[in-house]
Amino acid sequence: MSLDGFVAGPRPTLEAPLGEGGGLLHEWLFGLASFREQHGLGGGGTGPEDDLNRAVVESTGACVMGRRMFSGGSGPWADDPNASGWWGDEPPFGVPVFVLTHHAREPLVLGATTFHFVTDGIDAALERARAAAGERDVTVVGGADVVRQALRAGAVEEVQLHVAPVLLGGGTRLFADDPLSFELTDVLGSPKAAHLRYRPADE
Amino acid sequence: MSLDGFVAGPRPTLEAPLGEGGGLLHEWLFGLASFREQHGLGGGGTGPEDDLNRAVVESTGACVMGRRMFSGGSGPWADDPNASGWWGDEPPFGVPVFVLTHHAREPLVLGATTFHFVTDGIDAALERARAAAGERDVTVVGGADVVRQALRAGAVEEVQLHVAPVLLGGGTRLFADDPLSFELTDVLGSPKAAHLRYRPADE
Repeated sequence: MSLDGFVAGPRPTLEAPLGEGGGLLHEWLFGLASFREQHGLGGGGTGPEDDLNRAVVESTGACVMGRRMFSGGSGPWADDPNASGWWGDEPPFGVPVFVLTHHAREPLVLGATTFHFVTDGIDAALERARAAAGERDVTVVGGADVVRQALRAGAVEEVQLHVAPVLLGGGTRLFADDPLSFELTDVLGSPKAAHLRYRPADE
Repeated sequence: MSLDGFVAGPRPTLEAPLGEGGGLLHEWLFGLASFREQHGLGGGGTGPEDDLNRAVVESTGACVMGRRMFSGGSGPWADDPNASGWWGDEPPFGVPVFVLTHHAREPLVLGATTFHFVTDGIDAALERARAAAGERDVTVVGGADVVRQALRAGAVEEVQLHVAPVLLGGGTRLFADDPLSFELTDVLGSPKAAHLRYRPADE
């Protein structure tokens, strides 16, 4: 998230689905050894930020994502029922991914990742993801709308926010009209991001 | 600031100028020894958060604030040219405070605090505050609009954000339409707030 609350910048395109400036939100990730590994690359930095990212990758047994995150934005391509998505032949997830959509579709296998398309809502997607994850965690990877649906459903045990030190001035907000309270449980800072961990507060 | 970017909640009143839920943003402060001292009270908690707040109080030689922060909101009272402000007979500042306003007015002395009213803009207010602060720092205390004016003027050397773990869902945003980059220089977490220190990035 940017300091002004956006998880994507304004004017997204197919080439730049995170919008103008949106790439800055993920700069902290690109140089990390664990991120490079996930993308089939060697090298990269180690240390506390890499440990943090590696812990999420290793503890994740299944992901939930929105239709637009699967297809790379909200352009006309997003509605192509046969699109293979934005993630190429080797998506970095490596675990089952449950895509919330209104279009029923057969599962799509790409490399080590299988995308399952769920048409009956967030609760069903989370339930199927939990079953697939087994002992490991379900990670709701985005977009903002799906994160908010999961929060509203009371299904979130932990929120990890990575706040990049930029103002985007527009784009897609993570939060909207949901008065909620959290408790900060952990914090880690680097010049490129403040990593904040929360659990929903009981109130 | 709330996690969703607000420095005051919706529907402010004279009694609750920070709006609905706005008090939650400052909960981390109320129990600190340094905060209680500033308000003429004894006791209170010590530790890293208290040290952080004490450092700001002790390094501040002058403050800059907006008219509405002086008068306690945007109701009709905000335009009373003789109002003594929202801060009572013993405002907690204890240093000269420069209030940005469109109404010229003689300085107002309340306890250890003198309010000066500046009608010729943010640059003039900052210049007068710098002269008054001497070796110490000028702290722009708010509201959001004055903070943004100071950022836009390129006059800010450090931003300290105290992010409370709540979503307010509405109110006054700190940031708006100003694409800027920062560098995170320090971070401190407690269950009640993530304390983030930034310096503007050279780009």
